[in-house]
Amino acid sequence: MSTVSLPDLGRRARSAARLLATMPSSAKDAALVLAAEGLTTSADEILSANATDVARSVESGASPTVVDRLRLSEERVAAMADGLRAVAALPDPVGEVVEGHVRPNGLRVERVRVPLGVVGIIYENRPNVTADAAALCLKSGNAALLRGSAGALESNRVIASSFSQAIAKAGLPPDAVLLVEDTAHATAVEFVRLRGVIDCLIPRGGPALISMILEHATVPYVLDGDGNCHVYVDAAADLSMAERIVVNAKMQRPSVCNAAETLLVHKGVADEFLPRMGLALDGVVLAADERARPLLPGSRPASEADFATEFLALELAVGVVDDLDGAIAHIARYGSGHSEAIVTSDLEAATRFVREVDAAAVLVNASTRFIDGGELGLGAEVGISTQKLHARGPMGLRELTCVKYVVYGQGQIRP
Amino acid sequence: MSTVSLPDLGRRARSAARLLATMPSSAKDAALVLAAEGLTTSADEILSANATDVARSVESGASPTVVDRLRLSEERVAAMADGLRAVAALPDPVGEVVEGHVRPNGLRVERVRVPLGVVGIIYENRPNVTADAAALCLKSGNAALLRGSAGALESNRVIASSFSQAIAKAGLPPDAVLLVEDTAHATAVEFVRLRGVIDCLIPRGGPALISMILEHATVPYVLDGDGNCHVYVDAAADLSMAERIVVNAKMQRPSVCNAAETLLVHKGVADEFLPRMGLALDGVVLAADERARPLLPGSRPASEADFATEFLALELAVGVVDDLDGAIAHIARYGSGHSEAIVTSDLEAATRFVREVDAAAVLVNASTRFIDGGELGLGAEVGISTQKLHARGPMGLRELTCVKYVVYGQGQIRP
Repeated sequence: MSTVSLPDLGRRARSAARLLATMPSSAKDAALVLAAEGLTTSADEILSANATDVARSVESGASPTVVDRLRLSEERVAAMADGLRAVAALPDPVGEVVEGHVRPNGLRVERVRVPLGVVGIIYENRPNVTADAAALCLKSGNAALLRGSAGALESNRVIASSFSQAIAKAGLPPDAVLLVEDTAHATAVEFVRLRGVIDCLIPRGGPALISMILEHATVPYVLDGDGNCHVYVDAAADLSMAERIVVNAKMQRPSVCNAAETLLVHKGVADEFLPRMGLALDGVVLAADERARPLLPGSRPASEADFATEFLALELAVGVVDDLDGAIAHIARYGSGHSEAIVTSDLEAATRFVREVDAAAVLVNASTRFIDGGELGLGAEVGISTQKLHARGPMGLRELTCVKYVVYGQGQIRP
Repeated sequence: MSTVSLPDLGRRARSAARLLATMPSSAKDAALVLAAEGLTTSADEILSANATDVARSVESGASPTVVDRLRLSEERVAAMADGLRAVAALPDPVGEVVEGHVRPNGLRVERVRVPLGVVGIIYENRPNVTADAAALCLKSGNAALLRGSAGALESNRVIASSFSQAIAKAGLPPDAVLLVEDTAHATAVEFVRLRGVIDCLIPRGGPALISMILEHATVPYVLDGDGNCHVYVDAAADLSMAERIVVNAKMQRPSVCNAAETLLVHKGVADEFLPRMGLALDGVVLAADERARPLLPGSRPASEADFATEFLALELAVGVVDDLDGAIAHIARYGSGHSEAIVTSDLEAATRFVREVDAAAVLVNASTRFIDGGELGLGAEVGISTQKLHARGPMGLRELTCVKYVVYGQGQIRP
């Protein structure tokens, strides 16, 4: 167990952040490439540390899912290294002049993109987050203060130390990536209260972690929330297109947040569309409301809870609505503000859906699965925000920065 | 005392927000002009309610400052009405397409500015905030849920009700402006925990309010922090310009957050500049460090606390630094991240100061007093954020919005 106190780590991270903020992209990219090489070189050491973590985790009776997330392999280490090289290849958001103008008194005003400072990441048993998060923070000029879980401590230690060595070799402050090795619950609470140290906290974990943050955090944070995503098939939908989109949104990768969880169908096309979908969604458990059930043999009755659930599995709630207003009202009630799609060829319906549905992303005639940093052209993704402040939707490198006013004068004073 | 519960008010605000988000600027502007007329028409009623508040406040032994903030006059009511007309005249931020592009698969991706939804404002004894905040929220398409203080309740009631009537007359949902009339402390705590109701909380008040929010809030918030602003006079400064800037930054309006609180002087010009400033800052109490004191007759020794204090008065901490690095380090240590200025004719010093000082705003050869929504061209100002997430520096109408992804396809699915 490390004897370094959290406030000490915080001070080191802040010093590193000040230095890192002024470093050119070339140095940061060189560090990322060296860190990728470092991971490859240390692969044996990483795998051996990981084997210790995995053994401990199995011994303590962890679920197979947890053990699977924890377990690294040569391929997974290679994928982590490739991830670092991919981040190195992305454009640097720092220094972008977002806007600028000259005031009537001659003051030149610019708004310039700068790093946030210290980004805190608190995460569960995924050692790959250590490398991913460190890379995204470094590229965006932020020091990363990483608080992983007890279960992945040995793996995280080796990965973070290999990363710090690469950073130092590239002439950047090694404290730009710091791992908090004290994994006590009390330290997690202390971590989310490091006001003045952490400029932005990004949690990567489940509901218990989010609750802890809502209850205790005093530092600013960005939450990556649930995705209870809907596809609404309008009266004027091309039903073949609708079928393709619903199948894709539900089945292409059901375990992710941008997969569809509820299908809403306009009553005018339900008789034709739903029996067809019953066949197309072969293998999907359907929970249907009163009007949809007779059209979906084998479905079970949908409860209120079904419409509120993010299944993350081959399960789908299905409802029939009277019209567009009914669909919009249903989404307002049950949606989690992630990604919502309409299938329609009616311009007015599309326009109203886009305008009236309150979510990070709305889609017309496309699968919800496209709401993802890679698919939208952001490159790497830090997460998908379902909150409205600071970042909404997929968060890329730009969301790890903020904008500062820079004002150039020639001696102006306020009259 | 109203019997409407906070959750009920929250539901009403959310419904109103959904309607308001789709309303055109013309309707919102008409409502603001009607609200301005309403304030003028109700002036007698407002002043009479305010007289009750003031009398109660005096009786309870409130300080003259508190009573002064609370007290309205015909002129102040007229100024509130003018404020509403000024907001009506500003451009509407809603609907702006912030960026857009077409993906290789033909998906058209846009990012569109939309209202936040429900904005919660929690504020102390200033009844003018009721009208100001309601206007800014309405213009930006947000429902305003206003939680004023007990001391201003009668005034707030009349102002909010006059505002709601104007909104209804313009055909907008009257619940778009709702006042929480329960002013118990427990309700304030409940208010900042209305997760799922309040999309953004903006506090307008002192350190006790901020602490309460840090401790209890579960809704997202934007804080308007202290301004411990510095002016650094470099070795290469034009000393006449520096004198004008320091006098302006300290003395033009010492009670505001963008006034200067500390003067830092390069040791190379201290001998010439400081005695001159001692005369120019006539009437300002100077707290000088060891090196500055002999050059400033009548100054008192500066303590550590002086450098950390936002005086908001005719008082200034003064320090001599060895060089630019010393100034940057001092600001990193004591600054509150608001507005920091350098006076110099040296390009490298200006460039380094701009890059290395971490604040909402940095200025070269201009008074810190320019960091204000009006002076920077934002029109109305909601406050000045010293945090980094969502908004940094002066917050205008744009900071009361967020950006949503809109994706238009022709049936695209993810392979």
